Amino acid sequence: MKINELTTPALVAEGSVLRSNLAEMASALPGDRLRPHVKAHKCTALAHLQAEFGHKGFTCATIAEMEAMAAAGLGEDLLLANEVADATRLGRLVDAGAAVTLAVDSEHTIDAAARAGVRHVLIDVNVGLPRCGCNPSDAARLADLARKRGIEVNGVMGYEGHIVGLTDRKERAAGVEASMALLTEAHSEVGGEIISAGGTGTYDLNPWATEIQAGSYALMDTAYGALGLPFGQALGVLSTVISSNDEWAVCDAGLKSLGMDHGNPAIEDHRVWFCSDEHITFDPPEPVGTRLLVIPAHVDPTVAYHSTLNVTDGEDVLEQWPIDMRGW
Amino acid sequence: MKINELTTPALVAEGSVLRSNLAEMASALPGDRLRPHVKAHKCTALAHLQAEFGHKGFTCATIAEMEAMAAAGLGEDLLLANEVADATRLGRLVDAGAAVTLAVDSEHTIDAAARAGVRHVLIDVNVGLPRCGCNPSDAARLADLARKRGIEVNGVMGYEGHIVGLTDRKERAAGVEASMALLTEAHSEVGGEIISAGGTGTYDLNPWATEIQAGSYALMDTAYGALGLPFGQALGVLSTVISSNDEWAVCDAGLKSLGMDHGNPAIEDHRVWFCSDEHITFDPPEPVGTRLLVIPAHVDPTVAYHSTLNVTDGEDVLEQWPIDMRGW
Repeated sequence: MKINELTTPALVAEGSVLRSNLAEMASALPGDRLRPHVKAHKCTALAHLQAEFGHKGFTCATIAEMEAMAAAGLGEDLLLANEVADATRLGRLVDAGAAVTLAVDSEHTIDAAARAGVRHVLIDVNVGLPRCGCNPSDAARLADLARKRGIEVNGVMGYEGHIVGLTDRKERAAGVEASMALLTEAHSEVGGEIISAGGTGTYDLNPWATEIQAGSYALMDTAYGALGLPFGQALGVLSTVISSNDEWAVCDAGLKSLGMDHGNPAIEDHRVWFCSDEHITFDPPEPVGTRLLVIPAHVDPTVAYHSTLNVTDGEDVLEQWPIDMRGW
Repeated sequence: MKINELTTPALVAEGSVLRSNLAEMASALPGDRLRPHVKAHKCTALAHLQAEFGHKGFTCATIAEMEAMAAAGLGEDLLLANEVADATRLGRLVDAGAAVTLAVDSEHTIDAAARAGVRHVLIDVNVGLPRCGCNPSDAARLADLARKRGIEVNGVMGYEGHIVGLTDRKERAAGVEASMALLTEAHSEVGGEIISAGGTGTYDLNPWATEIQAGSYALMDTAYGALGLPFGQALGVLSTVISSNDEWAVCDAGLKSLGMDHGNPAIEDHRVWFCSDEHITFDPPEPVGTRLLVIPAHVDPTVAYHSTLNVTDGEDVLEQWPIDMRGW
């Protein structure tokens, strides 16, 4: 199949760039030094490829991702790096033989884990991003509480999400160090073997974490592309020009095929004016029928709009991978 | 089923508000004065309800929406209010008995329609929004070209998308008048019975159009909610609080369950700080396990993230409608 046979908009990833990104990361963070975050691609076929590159443990953001990974035979070491108010479905995964570790940051989430039969947790510690995670000073109390409920506390996690996107590398390095000072202090009181943290923007700036949760590195987007990382832009949304005049043209990607929270996507050698539901207005104009590659600003919410990832080699579509971890 | 049994995040619509919105619009624009735009809900069950309220013709933004509407028995008068570089699949719909009208704005799109066997078009005229649509002065030439290819030209369309969201009603009224001056001038040269235009923000400000393409009025969002229209907020994303402290809390809706191009969603009596892939950070905090209704800023790209629309009556889930017009 040729890429020109794809119905547009179509999610595409250049296979050689994807493999190069996986090789680069596996060289920097081999084996269990990386726990790839599947939320960035939501695709078990891509996760299988990451496993081939040596990473057997994975990070998930939703229970549905955990279930899909286990169903795909990738359940030997799954971390749900997120809190859940009801862990019932995770208990079922444990019963079915998956190795499940769950982030907890409160009495409620520990209770949910215990009642559901989840037997391994990490204490999620707030390291500066105002989101999930307990106050570092509360980590030891929560670990004790979990152990009293018969749960094994394997360590801590803390996501420096306020740091990973800073464009200045020195600022990122300083931010990671400050965040990890909080996390390692909490870890010294909690115990356990795991200190889980990090993302694509800080993967090589974090010697304190025992494992890094990066995900975006595989496919990439314009936001991470601005950081000068050694990962190429594998992902694009293939689009067709449907309207054109002397001043601008319009292609058929838009708000329903692109995550927009990081702003407009990019089209090489063109300027994006704005996006509508099924349109991007841009200049300079191109003739109707021209196919263009649109580069998303944010990979995760872009992938979540699509049902298929088309892996390409130039003009050829090599494989069509289901985006099979969507929904909740 | 009770709404508290739904896995969150879950797309919900209060049935009484939805029906009230449909009734209000059907009263203002009865029968074929409204051509509901299905891109706002992507749900054939909701389209069936709109048909029960008297609207038999529908507007679509994608070929997949056209196909799903025809497959659902709603193909008696379908307008694809968008250009396509390749109309082959529309030709197949025509062959299968659907009544298909296609927007065209160039020689290329007319040629695509003719070659595919599409027999009815509207000349799409640019009325001020820099997107699709020909220059008004070019409409007559394109209509002649279409007729020479054996295509019936049923009239014109022109979407005043730069006007529909203006919060000042007088500005909207003046903007519509200016846009429709361009469209009616083009129509006088093109001919045909149809002048198709408008949206939820201008539905009662446009006596020039023979039909209005509104879609958002059925479910609504915070952007249209700011316009003082007589449509209630039917749509929400039900979410569960998963983390909480003295300063903020976090619920499990986020960038993958909410269209973000219009900015952050709203939570009544709370302030949204920011959204992450599967999180909203907000204050004042609520306890873990609390269920909250998140109101999207933009209905269309929000719905497109979900597979099911749960129609509710207070605490009860009355129906679960598939969002069956996703993809392309």
